[in-house]
Amino acid sequence: MNGRLAIGIDIGHTNLRAGLVDQTGAVRDVIRERTDISGGPEGVLEQIVRSAELLRGKHEVAGIGVGIAGQCDIARGVVRCGPNLFWPDVPLQQWLNEEMKLPVILRNDVVMATVGEWRYGAGRGCHELVMLLVGTGIGGGAVVNGKLLQGATGCGGHFGHISVQMDGPLCGCGRPGCVEAYASGSGLATRAREDPCLSSSMLANTLRLDGMAVAQAALAGDPLALRLRDEAATALSSAVSNVINCFNPQRVILGGAVLNGLTQLFDLTVRGAMEQCLPSHRDHLEMKNIELGDLSGIIGAASWVHYPL
Amino acid sequence: MNGRLAIGIDIGHTNLRAGLVDQTGAVRDVIRERTDISGGPEGVLEQIVRSAELLRGKHEVAGIGVGIAGQCDIARGVVRCGPNLFWPDVPLQQWLNEEMKLPVILRNDVVMATVGEWRYGAGRGCHELVMLLVGTGIGGGAVVNGKLLQGATGCGGHFGHISVQMDGPLCGCGRPGCVEAYASGSGLATRAREDPCLSSSMLANTLRLDGMAVAQAALAGDPLALRLRDEAATALSSAVSNVINCFNPQRVILGGAVLNGLTQLFDLTVRGAMEQCLPSHRDHLEMKNIELGDLSGIIGAASWVHYPL
Repeated sequence: MNGRLAIGIDIGHTNLRAGLVDQTGAVRDVIRERTDISGGPEGVLEQIVRSAELLRGKHEVAGIGVGIAGQCDIARGVVRCGPNLFWPDVPLQQWLNEEMKLPVILRNDVVMATVGEWRYGAGRGCHELVMLLVGTGIGGGAVVNGKLLQGATGCGGHFGHISVQMDGPLCGCGRPGCVEAYASGSGLATRAREDPCLSSSMLANTLRLDGMAVAQAALAGDPLALRLRDEAATALSSAVSNVINCFNPQRVILGGAVLNGLTQLFDLTVRGAMEQCLPSHRDHLEMKNIELGDLSGIIGAASWVHYPL
Repeated sequence: MNGRLAIGIDIGHTNLRAGLVDQTGAVRDVIRERTDISGGPEGVLEQIVRSAELLRGKHEVAGIGVGIAGQCDIARGVVRCGPNLFWPDVPLQQWLNEEMKLPVILRNDVVMATVGEWRYGAGRGCHELVMLLVGTGIGGGAVVNGKLLQGATGCGGHFGHISVQMDGPLCGCGRPGCVEAYASGSGLATRAREDPCLSSSMLANTLRLDGMAVAQAALAGDPLALRLRDEAATALSSAVSNVINCFNPQRVILGGAVLNGLTQLFDLTVRGAMEQCLPSHRDHLEMKNIELGDLSGIIGAASWVHYPL
């Protein structure tokens, strides 16, 4: 064995990933599953514990870092709104600590992914960094003055809940016009379902109308899917410009299954955001895709165990 | 004499203030004038030098801190878009240094005001703070992890250029729907001038249709002015919620001549922003008015000379 190991867990709305990660950020072993919310938070806990025990095996493990889609109250180690948005306050940190007898650190999933990309991926060496991941939901993270933005209650960086249109579609958070309502997988699916043109779209016959279905339809030239893609790009460009104007970052990292899976969405977003942000913020700005694929979250979460923030 | 003195200069679109400030943040002397842009940047430079020389008198002064409305390139000490928005790149830092033979520090006006409120006003003791000032324009500043947000090029905190409506009114920055286009003094005036109901409003007969005229008309119950106030409150609420969701601050400081001068705008904005932001961000959040009145900017700018950031 060379060096300590830690377990990183990344619990998204759709996918659950668990990995055994060393002190250099290298992933020694990884487990990928669908997030199974049918058993409620206790069911997801079991899923996590099963994966973590498998990864631990006979290894000595220093601790577990968990990133979860939702708002985390870090003072209490509680997930306020978990993957299905209807969980009550879930004391996930304590539960997992009792099950595994290991120290547990809990944060939002995209905050953990930001840590991963910052330390080992597209954000290496950055002093001023922002990141947005567009998947089933939209999350974010930021590094300011060379330190992770955590905020007063550990919830900094919820860029998915930037409203770009005061009379826009209602978001799951209760507010109109959040970029998540336009451009996330769940937002795209809801908009497709509610669109008057659905019946003449190939999406009408889709068994599972989700973000990936919209991406496939867009690739096949479906007019509804392409219009939703364009609206998502416009909303994302506006949200990313807002983040740039607020933070004046040196680098913006964009990624996620929807941003990289929906045809041209990445390029349209980068172009739109660059056009709209303030000139003083544009000149020294780089926009990049993530480098660690779907492993940013587990790498970031495990690295937090090795090197606390 | 007790302690060193520094000069703080605050150059807004409308008002220019200069003050002699000691190391405790106390203002020993202050000069208030209208910003006179008729002579271009050189004319404003003369105005600054005249005020600064008057304040210096026979005192020993450690340096000059300048906050100016616009985008500052701190690497070059240049104002990219000054008060009238049509200035070319102005090397104000160098000009002023040559005229006064004193060290000069240059930043955006509301960033300087944020420093003032953080160190001596409504933000004292805050680790996570954001501030928005609504005057002729809208500016902002933030403290993250106990340090001032400066950003990659010194331009962090341009919260006036958060777009809240993708098809909203065009902002001076070239982008549609910035909160500055709705709620700043200049935005309110432009919206009044372009409104089809102007002819039936008391604003039709106003000699100088600016933010203060809208405020006076609203106080007199003018329907157009009250509608513009409501629209400004809605836009501000959305922008402030966006900032809260991004930064997760412990405190939000709001102020400025328009926010405090337009009847009920402050209360409507606070209520709207609190309703819209994420629950996890709301619970431990305080929203306050500024405490240093129109002196935050000069106090912050001078304090930067005393205690560099």
